[in-house]
Amino acid sequence: MLTGGDYTLVYNVLSFGTAVMFGAFVYFLTQMRSVNKQYQAGIAVSAIVVGIAGYHYYRIWSDFGEGVMNEGYRYADWLITVPLLIIELLIVLGVAKQERRSLMLKLVPATILMVGLGYPGEVANGNGAKWTFWVLAILPFIFILKTLFGELQKASQRETGAVAAQIKNATYVLLTTWMVYPIAYLFPIFDGESETLETLRQVGYTFADITAKGLYGLMILWIAKARTEAEVTG
Amino acid sequence: MLTGGDYTLVYNVLSFGTAVMFGAFVYFLTQMRSVNKQYQAGIAVSAIVVGIAGYHYYRIWSDFGEGVMNEGYRYADWLITVPLLIIELLIVLGVAKQERRSLMLKLVPATILMVGLGYPGEVANGNGAKWTFWVLAILPFIFILKTLFGELQKASQRETGAVAAQIKNATYVLLTTWMVYPIAYLFPIFDGESETLETLRQVGYTFADITAKGLYGLMILWIAKARTEAEVTG
Repeated sequence: MLTGGDYTLVYNVLSFGTAVMFGAFVYFLTQMRSVNKQYQAGIAVSAIVVGIAGYHYYRIWSDFGEGVMNEGYRYADWLITVPLLIIELLIVLGVAKQERRSLMLKLVPATILMVGLGYPGEVANGNGAKWTFWVLAILPFIFILKTLFGELQKASQRETGAVAAQIKNATYVLLTTWMVYPIAYLFPIFDGESETLETLRQVGYTFADITAKGLYGLMILWIAKARTEAEVTG
Repeated sequence: MLTGGDYTLVYNVLSFGTAVMFGAFVYFLTQMRSVNKQYQAGIAVSAIVVGIAGYHYYRIWSDFGEGVMNEGYRYADWLITVPLLIIELLIVLGVAKQERRSLMLKLVPATILMVGLGYPGEVANGNGAKWTFWVLAILPFIFILKTLFGELQKASQRETGAVAAQIKNATYVLLTTWMVYPIAYLFPIFDGESETLETLRQVGYTFADITAKGLYGLMILWIAKARTEAEVTG
């Protein structure tokens, strides 16, 4: 358990995460009607992702305040929100329904594998177990990122102007923030006793979640708005 | 009471159930206006079902965290939500109002009987009592499933294309998930002391509830959307 300034920092960052997630939840809900019908479900899913994340941050923060760090909440959260993040992207990229279904049939099991294989390593004490599950979880992780990167590239080539630019930005955000997770995961292996590393890890996870869910949801909204504009004037 | 890893797993699964239910609640509310008027009440009922289930999961989880497993919440939940699940189905299947009423007059008392007869066996300690109430509750259970299966078959024969396919999928989800309940109910009879069986039972109930309320509500929404589309273009 963290102490002193480290404890206070993580405590405040977790509360910050809760506030940002619920703020984003309300914002996405209010913006749903500002995009064309076919993208509204994507914005609703963005809202639900940050709403569910807000709930989990509230729970992590509340337990942490009582002296318990329950990493299980992060994994429960990712189990729900990662598939939803993929769905919102595919809706707003304008991937045809039939193809979306076949993509989801590959990607959803991959996310369950990724999160499910990450968890035992997260809660294990030995470095051997942590490395083993890291390696196992990184395989579906790479598969998911590669598939999404391919879809993003295809979509940005299909599009022009503002829509293509927004999709490119979303690609960068997706690729860079997702990289935080497998790195932060390894911190306890380098030094399981270091309060500084644990603090960095918790702060890293929180900012990665804020970016991967909140900022990413915002970029999804911008893509949908740019598309709506192009469809109105086109 | 569960201990160690079993306790943590059930605790996290109950929290997971809470998050999924409230997430689905928000999603169904946002999607209400995306279907034609005559199906909107059905989607509203879907939202209410998962909202009520989310409340009960929150309560079960919260008590469980304090060392109490109150199965009464599950039965209170089912008493409210099972009739609502039937209503949302009948609305979206397009069953005529008059027929819907006469079906409800048979099915609602059957659900009350089913849940009411299941509860004494759930809280009883003796295996004799558990078996007796299992047998008594399974009779209305079979009657309800048989009636709904008949309505689903009639509806899928009335329809064509996407609507018929969606109805068939909903039929499979209904039949397979409902089967979890009478099976999970029996676990304490096989071995009332086994923590593994109790963990499996709680996880089983939770995933069955997520499927029977959340996924099923999603399929109801898809049926309503397919119908709306068919009515617009037809």
